[in-house]
Amino acid sequence: MSTPGDLIDALRAALGADHVLTADRHDLTGFEQDWRRRARGRALAVARPGTTDEVAAVVRACAAAGVSLVPQGGNTGLVVGSVPDDSGQQVVLSLQRLNRVRALDRANLTLTVEAGCVLQAVQETAEAAGLLFPLSLAAEGSCTIGGNLATNAGGTQVLRYGNARDLCLGLEVVTASGDIWHGLSGLRKDNTGYDLRDLFIGSEGTLGVITAATLKLFPRPAATLTAWAAVPSMQAAVDLLGLAQQRLAAGLTGFEVMGRFALSLVACHLPQLRVPLWQDHPYCVLLENSDSEGEAHARGAFEGLLEAALERGLVSDAVVAESMAQAQALWHIREGIPLAQAEEGLNIKHDISLPVSRIPAFCDETDARLSREIPGVRLVNFGHLGDGNLHYNVQAPAGGDARAFLAEQEARVNQLVYDAVAAHGGSISAEHGVGSLKAACLPHYKDPVALDLMRAVKAALDPAGRLNPGRVLA
Amino acid sequence: MSTPGDLIDALRAALGADHVLTADRHDLTGFEQDWRRRARGRALAVARPGTTDEVAAVVRACAAAGVSLVPQGGNTGLVVGSVPDDSGQQVVLSLQRLNRVRALDRANLTLTVEAGCVLQAVQETAEAAGLLFPLSLAAEGSCTIGGNLATNAGGTQVLRYGNARDLCLGLEVVTASGDIWHGLSGLRKDNTGYDLRDLFIGSEGTLGVITAATLKLFPRPAATLTAWAAVPSMQAAVDLLGLAQQRLAAGLTGFEVMGRFALSLVACHLPQLRVPLWQDHPYCVLLENSDSEGEAHARGAFEGLLEAALERGLVSDAVVAESMAQAQALWHIREGIPLAQAEEGLNIKHDISLPVSRIPAFCDETDARLSREIPGVRLVNFGHLGDGNLHYNVQAPAGGDARAFLAEQEARVNQLVYDAVAAHGGSISAEHGVGSLKAACLPHYKDPVALDLMRAVKAALDPAGRLNPGRVLA
Repeated sequence: MSTPGDLIDALRAALGADHVLTADRHDLTGFEQDWRRRARGRALAVARPGTTDEVAAVVRACAAAGVSLVPQGGNTGLVVGSVPDDSGQQVVLSLQRLNRVRALDRANLTLTVEAGCVLQAVQETAEAAGLLFPLSLAAEGSCTIGGNLATNAGGTQVLRYGNARDLCLGLEVVTASGDIWHGLSGLRKDNTGYDLRDLFIGSEGTLGVITAATLKLFPRPAATLTAWAAVPSMQAAVDLLGLAQQRLAAGLTGFEVMGRFALSLVACHLPQLRVPLWQDHPYCVLLENSDSEGEAHARGAFEGLLEAALERGLVSDAVVAESMAQAQALWHIREGIPLAQAEEGLNIKHDISLPVSRIPAFCDETDARLSREIPGVRLVNFGHLGDGNLHYNVQAPAGGDARAFLAEQEARVNQLVYDAVAAHGGSISAEHGVGSLKAACLPHYKDPVALDLMRAVKAALDPAGRLNPGRVLA
Repeated sequence: MSTPGDLIDALRAALGADHVLTADRHDLTGFEQDWRRRARGRALAVARPGTTDEVAAVVRACAAAGVSLVPQGGNTGLVVGSVPDDSGQQVVLSLQRLNRVRALDRANLTLTVEAGCVLQAVQETAEAAGLLFPLSLAAEGSCTIGGNLATNAGGTQVLRYGNARDLCLGLEVVTASGDIWHGLSGLRKDNTGYDLRDLFIGSEGTLGVITAATLKLFPRPAATLTAWAAVPSMQAAVDLLGLAQQRLAAGLTGFEVMGRFALSLVACHLPQLRVPLWQDHPYCVLLENSDSEGEAHARGAFEGLLEAALERGLVSDAVVAESMAQAQALWHIREGIPLAQAEEGLNIKHDISLPVSRIPAFCDETDARLSREIPGVRLVNFGHLGDGNLHYNVQAPAGGDARAFLAEQEARVNQLVYDAVAAHGGSISAEHGVGSLKAACLPHYKDPVALDLMRAVKAALDPAGRLNPGRVLA
């Protein structure tokens, strides 16, 4: 094959004409534009295979044509990792039609699904069987499990159940050469060679295309309670986390922290959510307790924890939700922060992680440094404290031009925040990945030997560099 | 450098003469002989570096001399993965002197240790801080954490806490070229590139040399109870597991199954251990419940579970240990099985895993098939049922010559068992690894695309093939 038209013909022959979309006949915006509208590319075509064999056929056809591929799930990523560049020469490989549930094994607590299954559908499949698939994040109504695995997604239940990586036992993957690795194991233990599963998970489509996965399921808790606690400082929040881990053990399934300014935005822009306790305290914490016995036991454990924390001065005031509706209302406040901050205007977003023990010092130092450098700057600081993961976002001073602020300050603020993260042993991308957005700055913060090893792995598994080029490794 | 003597001189210059052992001056048996005495090699020298920089110096010196390296920790592996071959040309790289505790971060629940720390010392370091490092296995008094990670060790707490892989957040590794990857992260979330940590974990020293690790710690449970239940069938044991997972959730920290013949060997050869309930039931199960509240709560939950199981016919009879001493006595029975079977004579050992749901059918079919093929054969079937991991060992008919039985039957029995494992979607090595012992048969049972990917990774990270050659990939 020698022309782009030849490749499109080959793709149509492999998938059927209906499943190869081109700009002359279709609106490709949803495939070419990233979710946060940071980038808009142009695709040669969008290939929509319906089976793993068809995915392999697409990969082989593109390899033969010397054309690179951009794998794409729900296209909800936050780091510009799943849209084509603006060359008009890349094929978007959409996994959305590959969306069957292949098997549910109740006694083994496993579920095997194809990559294009929407996360919420995976959760619902588990729920229909009386079981739990705990991965949960804001985009769950449209992101796909293949994308979740390709980016090692995090979310709100990581504290107890781990990242996407920890919820996956086996994978089916199409390699860069168009071969299929049949690795859909449902085994908890398998020491027969290198951990290819974890190599593909989190590689953002640059080493292979995940086409299906065998996922871990869990029994559903008998009761889940939610509490909201005002704390006098970030150090108190960290100490409260330790106490909650000790007393609730694996029952502690959520521990989110929210700064006063973040909550003030929710109170201002989403007043119907009625934020409790935010005005007189620097931080509030949302705790979730999942209990295998029942609500009375959960409530006893939770109240005992909060009383002990009040006595020790770790908590200034607290409420435990009295109903499922109240619990959901508290979660809606936490989940409303991104929307509220968008209402307030553009801001500079960070998805950082730190050793939990370093978070108070990091916040003290970085808050002070930013306030000194940018008088009036406002910090929308919130996140999954239980995982050491903060969304440490920087909003323009009140009344300023947010767009101008971003244009002037983004690079400088990023460097200031990332340098502080590095100084405290943290990561510049906790759960969002690298994509295009952070690929250029990664070499400044990643160990150079790690980068060399990553380049060697990339060259070994995708020697022609056809899979999602420019992502992760610039 | 051109002669072996030159290399030894270079190693002595790098480490000091005392830390380079050679057969002409030292007894190298403990370094050259594997733990199960399946193989005895001959080393050119044993290098015992005391720092990571010295490890790197050894790797570089061997690379310059074109000599291959066999990394070794406690040398307690079961698949001949850490002793030299019989060429007399390989250097054993012993990590035992690299045994400092580098840091304990209480609020972050992490412990950073060097590779040569003995597992039990790691457990004790955590305990001294009031915390738990849950990896636990028979060799814990002499195996090292570096070896545990290099082989992704399992053990008795995997059901709750995962394999060694799941207990590690960061690594320090000397690469094949003698560079040092400084990856000792204490982060729960870090999506800045490929998962190198999990690539080195379980690679059995063939991709790099692990020199230190940052490990996850946990709060210590307030109470741990142990129960012993006789069950009417393997299917009942699997159903009991499901019920225990539902009722105890993460409190279920142990679920071991033991067949009647395995227990009869303990009763016969270790009569002081007084095995309960074994005579009239095909299997017994040991359950462990770790509770964050206290003993009364643990006992209530445990008794409720066992009553429900008795009512449903999943359990025929059961006892809950009344004291720590009784609990330890029950664990000693479980842990006494390998010793008791050794007293009975040589046997053919398997370390297999299966989807939990397939274990009853696997055992029914394979028990019957072996009995048909080898009249009078005796099966020592026991293991970590909660992880789908059986030590499905095959003992010669009573009164026969065990050595002759092994010589005649081992290859045939292995094939029969492994073919059945493969037919049920299982693994021929659950927790012991591949080493030399299973390297030759791995290609018969591993997906060929996975093997190709593994070879590509090996060639990328150790292009000269100097790190533990012949292990994992024959």
